[in-house]
Amino acid sequence: MVCSVAFTEKPQLNDPVLIEGLPGIGFVANVSALHLISELHGRKFAEIVSSSFQDFAVLTADGGWSSPLNELYYVKRSDGGRDLVIWYGNTQALTTPGQYELCGKVLDVAQELGCRVAVSLGGFKREEVKGAPGVYAAATDEVSLKEALGLVTGTRVMVGHIFGVAGLVVGLSRLRGLASFALLVDTVGLYPDPVASKVALQAVAKYLGLVVDLSGVEGSTNQTKKMLESFGLVRNIADEKKKEEEALRWFI
Amino acid sequence: MVCSVAFTEKPQLNDPVLIEGLPGIGFVANVSALHLISELHGRKFAEIVSSSFQDFAVLTADGGWSSPLNELYYVKRSDGGRDLVIWYGNTQALTTPGQYELCGKVLDVAQELGCRVAVSLGGFKREEVKGAPGVYAAATDEVSLKEALGLVTGTRVMVGHIFGVAGLVVGLSRLRGLASFALLVDTVGLYPDPVASKVALQAVAKYLGLVVDLSGVEGSTNQTKKMLESFGLVRNIADEKKKEEEALRWFI
Amino acid sequence: MVCSVAFTEKPQLNDPVLIEGLPGIGFVANVSALHLISELHGRKFAEIVSSSFQDFAVLTADGGWSSPLNELYYVKRSDGGRDLVIWYGNTQALTTPGQYELCGKVLDVAQELGCRVAVSLGGFKREEVKGAPGVYAAATDEVSLKEALGLVTGTRVMVGHIFGVAGLVVGLSRLRGLASFALLVDTVGLYPDPVASKVALQAVAKYLGLVVDLSGVEGSTNQTKKMLESFGLVRNIADEKKKEEEALRWFI
Amino acid sequence: MVCSVAFTEKPQLNDPVLIEGLPGIGFVANVSALHLISELHGRKFAEIVSSSFQDFAVLTADGGWSSPLNELYYVKRSDGGRDLVIWYGNTQALTTPGQYELCGKVLDVAQELGCRVAVSLGGFKREEVKGAPGVYAAATDEVSLKEALGLVTGTRVMVGHIFGVAGLVVGLSRLRGLASFALLVDTVGLYPDPVASKVALQAVAKYLGLVVDLSGVEGSTNQTKKMLESFGLVRNIADEKKKEEEALRWFI
Repeated sequence: MVCSVAFTEKPQLNDPVLIEGLPGIGFVANVSALHLISELHGRKFAEIVSSSFQDFAVLTADGGWSSPLNELYYVKRSDGGRDLVIWYGNTQALTTPGQYELCGKVLDVAQELGCRVAVSLGGFKREEVKGAPGVYAAATDEVSLKEALGLVTGTRVMVGHIFGVAGLVVGLSRLRGLASFALLVDTVGLYPDPVASKVALQAVAKYLGLVVDLSGVEGSTNQTKKMLESFGLVRNIADEKKKEEEALRWFI
Repeated sequence: MVCSVAFTEKPQLNDPVLIEGLPGIGFVANVSALHLISELHGRKFAEIVSSSFQDFAVLTADGGWSSPLNELYYVKRSDGGRDLVIWYGNTQALTTPGQYELCGKVLDVAQELGCRVAVSLGGFKREEVKGAPGVYAAATDEVSLKEALGLVTGTRVMVGHIFGVAGLVVGLSRLRGLASFALLVDTVGLYPDPVASKVALQAVAKYLGLVVDLSGVEGSTNQTKKMLESFGLVRNIADEKKKEEEALRWFI
Repeated sequence: MVCSVAFTEKPQLNDPVLIEGLPGIGFVANVSALHLISELHGRKFAEIVSSSFQDFAVLTADGGWSSPLNELYYVKRSDGGRDLVIWYGNTQALTTPGQYELCGKVLDVAQELGCRVAVSLGGFKREEVKGAPGVYAAATDEVSLKEALGLVTGTRVMVGHIFGVAGLVVGLSRLRGLASFALLVDTVGLYPDPVASKVALQAVAKYLGLVVDLSGVEGSTNQTKKMLESFGLVRNIADEKKKEEEALRWFI
Repeated sequence: MVCSVAFTEKPQLNDPVLIEGLPGIGFVANVSALHLISELHGRKFAEIVSSSFQDFAVLTADGGWSSPLNELYYVKRSDGGRDLVIWYGNTQALTTPGQYELCGKVLDVAQELGCRVAVSLGGFKREEVKGAPGVYAAATDEVSLKEALGLVTGTRVMVGHIFGVAGLVVGLSRLRGLASFALLVDTVGLYPDPVASKVALQAVAKYLGLVVDLSGVEGSTNQTKKMLESFGLVRNIADEKKKEEEALRWFI
């Protein structure tokens, strides 16, 4: 199995852009993707299961059932703008090979659907965030970097490491000849962060020439929080992230 | 190899139902499956070996030989009721990818044989169990949940995590469009539990309109206990389970 | 790659028997296989590399080069007796899936060459061994067990666990319809043990109706010891074995 | 995915020699390969990504982007000498199976391009190095060993272990019928070592009858150092190496 995609539909899209929205630091990508799906009436067209997801299930009081899962949604626009492919989910893969497989699979699908650009979102972990959060951009190429830097005033070039899917999307895009940029927003990172998510959403909206109502972002944040609480996992996020960083090993 | 199925027969079955019966908390599924096979004269039609099983063998005083193994049995009914596919074994897989492979393989076989429903059984670990053990249900959909809740009086909706194969069966079934429910019964969980197993068997019998003689469940329990003792593993079960729970990591 | 076999020859053999001879407790199988190859003029016909072998190389003062490697030899007999396929090597695989792959691959080759019987040898770890070492047998079936018990006077039925390749050969043989037995000989287990190896060789010789000169077993033992010393590993064997046993996990 | 090679060109080469140049002890191979590419105007013709590389990205102040990556370069010579295939990269694989896959893939490409010889370079870790560093050679065969011993005056036969890709290249070459030798140069091993790299480069130049200007080796060393610093990893190298050695396990 390894990593299997089950399609319910293969949409015809207009020059679509892939938006990565998996859980990560501050759940910036995750809240943003959920909000985009809800505001733009995204339609789910594929479900992805990886054998590198955790083998458990989470059950809620109303009989709800959650398994580790990734999903792909599309948004067709009537204003002539570029369509969206939104990659949403409740988990990343547990292992490094699993992360590569998952990312590779989603980029395969995105390219098959005609995507030439992949946008990845994320949080930049800070001890505290005062005032408007800073934004950092990284990209596959200078043109994309310039474009990413121009979306939110004051955005700076990202320096340092990006872990997980947010970095992998851009790295693997480059090898495939896709243009890609990552936008990281300052966040304390323990809880789903509506402030950082709004900044990320503004950037995506500007990039795509979209109007996105941000008044409901707190709602999307609470929905993400509830999902996490049902998993009993919110308290562990910071620790997990630390362990992950400690586990870093650049093998020589 | 990864996970290979060796068939001795491909049975023609009447609207069959898959019953999962691997070792787990309280060995509820394992004792129940063994009892069903013995009472209903199940016929083995496939053996499954995964490279994620432990690489060892266990030998008994009478020259008996046990390797980690999963087996599939079928029961053809003469009363016109739905047939059974029983998934029995002495182990689950050692790794998360191995669990996914194993589950996926068994569901492949089940679907090939015409199964549209998968039932998974399990124990719900308690410090102590007084009186009749509680029962908890989880399902892929509302219809299945309602059906599962109606099998044993007082069954409640399961809330929380289900680890291992019991949860994976339902999670993967949902992605494949199979109906599936899990029934978990209160148990102290250290030893094969005949009381919890009887409750699980009553539920399965009611679901399938079967008459199952439960007077021999203690015998099936002792057989399971003997198997475990020959493996020298009974004492470690509680610890193992704890380690497994500690190992939980929802990767973000 | 996973596990690749490079053939230099595909021998035509007469009802051959596979003899497993990888390093293990007391190096009983390893010394025995080396001795059989040298006494019976075994010809190497295949080399096996697994990606689950350690990624290192060992170099000796004379420019010699050792990589983790398994090899297959054959012995064609002129006395009309059954031919031999000897599985020799300087390592087992590092991981459980690697062990399964390796064993499965060798059994594939053995079956392709017409083997219907697989014999696995090993040591049975003891604190001390006084007098003639005890011998223990395990088998896929009663006929093979009876045959194995009759090879050395006083051989008893093995009770307990067999770890690693010695157990896997018999376990996987059973699933493939091959007859197989394992012979384990008492040994202190830290160093290549010529006494235990002689007992194993006597049993194999009797089973195959072979005359094997045992006067050179000390030489084969020293050759094995030298190989191990060049790897700088002899001291760690007991510890490794202990760790391996601790790592045992029968997953439920 | 596992390990994928993306070609931009398939060069026609004259009896080419593969030169391994991944990061390792003292970065001897890495600095040497970088220097050869720059001095001989190597052209990149393939990029390699393995799912056993770390899943992160590194970003520099000028908007630069680094992912774990291996690359293949070729050098076509106008002097009638043998052409070069240079294997450069910023990482080895994280796991043993990943190392085997990566090495096997690169040797596949090398053989497809006509390489009959593979040269691997490396550092030999010392507490201190006084005067001219010692050189050690290991090879697939006596002819190659003799040739390797003759390249730098005073080169001795290597005795002991070679970890990682440097050893794997020679080990796997032998199994494929490729000639191969490794040259290891004394180094303290914590930082990219220009002195040891010069010795390695002199040997390669002599072997191939090449003129290589060594005045710029310090530049290549600094470039390697900068790459490492941007990864924030230089300080950890010695520790990592120690951990790797501790992790050695020759499984029996």
